[in-house]
Amino acid sequence: MEDAGPLERLIQKRRTIRKYQNRPVEREKILRCIEAARLGPSAENVQPWRFIILDDPALRERVARKAFSGIYFTTRWAIKAPVLVVILAKLDVITNRIGAHLQNCQFYLLDIGAAVQQMALQALELDIGTSWLGWFNGKKVRRELNIPDKYHVVAMMSMGHIERWPRHEKPRRTMEEIAWFNECR
Amino acid sequence: MEDAGPLERLIQKRRTIRKYQNRPVEREKILRCIEAARLGPSAENVQPWRFIILDDPALRERVARKAFSGIYFTTRWAIKAPVLVVILAKLDVITNRIGAHLQNCQFYLLDIGAAVQQMALQALELDIGTSWLGWFNGKKVRRELNIPDKYHVVAMMSMGHIERWPRHEKPRRTMEEIAWFNECR
Repeated sequence: MEDAGPLERLIQKRRTIRKYQNRPVEREKILRCIEAARLGPSAENVQPWRFIILDDPALRERVARKAFSGIYFTTRWAIKAPVLVVILAKLDVITNRIGAHLQNCQFYLLDIGAAVQQMALQALELDIGTSWLGWFNGKKVRRELNIPDKYHVVAMMSMGHIERWPRHEKPRRTMEEIAWFNECR
Repeated sequence: MEDAGPLERLIQKRRTIRKYQNRPVEREKILRCIEAARLGPSAENVQPWRFIILDDPALRERVARKAFSGIYFTTRWAIKAPVLVVILAKLDVITNRIGAHLQNCQFYLLDIGAAVQQMALQALELDIGTSWLGWFNGKKVRRELNIPDKYHVVAMMSMGHIERWPRHEKPRRTMEEIAWFNECR
C-alpha cells in the first residue's frame, strides 16, 4: 500500500475548529478558499453557490448576534469567529425541479456540500480552521444583510486562524457499518 | 502569495471523468476513497452516508443497464465504468426533521455532498477518475440491489482509472459573480 498522500493526510487531520485566534484572516487566504469552492462540481454545471464573506468586525458581530440568538444560542461561540461566510443557493429552476420532483433529491444541496467542503479543506491547507454552521436564524441573517428572495440561505461557515484543536475524537462509524461490496446490508 | 499547495493543485486539476480504462480498480484504492468519505463532517455527527460499491462486473453491468435506461439514457456512458458506487442516506429522524422543518434545509444532503467530494478528491490523488451521477432510475437501482426503505438513494458515483480527460473547459462563473465581502449583491 502506498503511503498516504498530502490530501489524504489533510482529510485525516481535518476537524471542526471552534476556537480561533483573535486576529483577522488575510483576504488573500479567504479568496483562495472561496476559489476552491468556485471550482467544485455541480449538476448541469449550474454552480448554485453564492458567498457573503463577513470580515468587517462590526458588521460580522452584528449579524452574528442576530443569527445565534434565542433557540440558536448553542452556536453563540461563533460570534467570536474572525470570519463568517454566509452560504447561499441561487436555484436553477429546471435542474432543481428535475432534481426535486423526478429524482426526489435537491441536487443543489449536494453541490453546495461538495463545493464548501473543498473550501474547508483548502482552508486547512492554509492553516485556517473552519466549522460548518447549520443552526442559526436564517430569517434574521436575511434581514440584516438584505438578501433577496432569489437566494436560499443554506448554511454558514466560520473561519479563523486555529487557536485550539478539539480535545476529543468524534466517534466514527466503522467502515463495515457504512460500505458494502456488491450488496446492501 | 504562497505557492499553490498539493490540495489546491488537486482542486484545480479535478474534472468530471467519463472515460475509464478497461481494467478493475484495486480494492485497496477503492477503500481509501471510501475512507475519505467516512471522515467527512456531518450535522450532529450523524454520518448519514452509506455506500454500495459495485465492482463485480456482472452485477455492476446488470444494475447499470437498469439504472441508465429509458429517459436516463444520457448516463449510459457510465455502464462502462469499472466501479459504480451507490450513495445512500440513512436519515436520522431528529436531525433531519430539525433541518427540514426549522431550517428549511436537508442537512444530510450537504453532509453527503461534503463526504463524497472528499472521496472524489481522494480518488484523484490516487489517479482514479470519478463522476457524480444524479440522473438515473433510483427505483430500479433499489429493486436490483434490494435496498430497504430505511435508506434514501441519493446519487451514484462512477470510478475508474482515467483513460481520457475532458477535451473542453467548463465555463465557470467568475469570483465576482459568486462572492461578495460584507454585502449581498
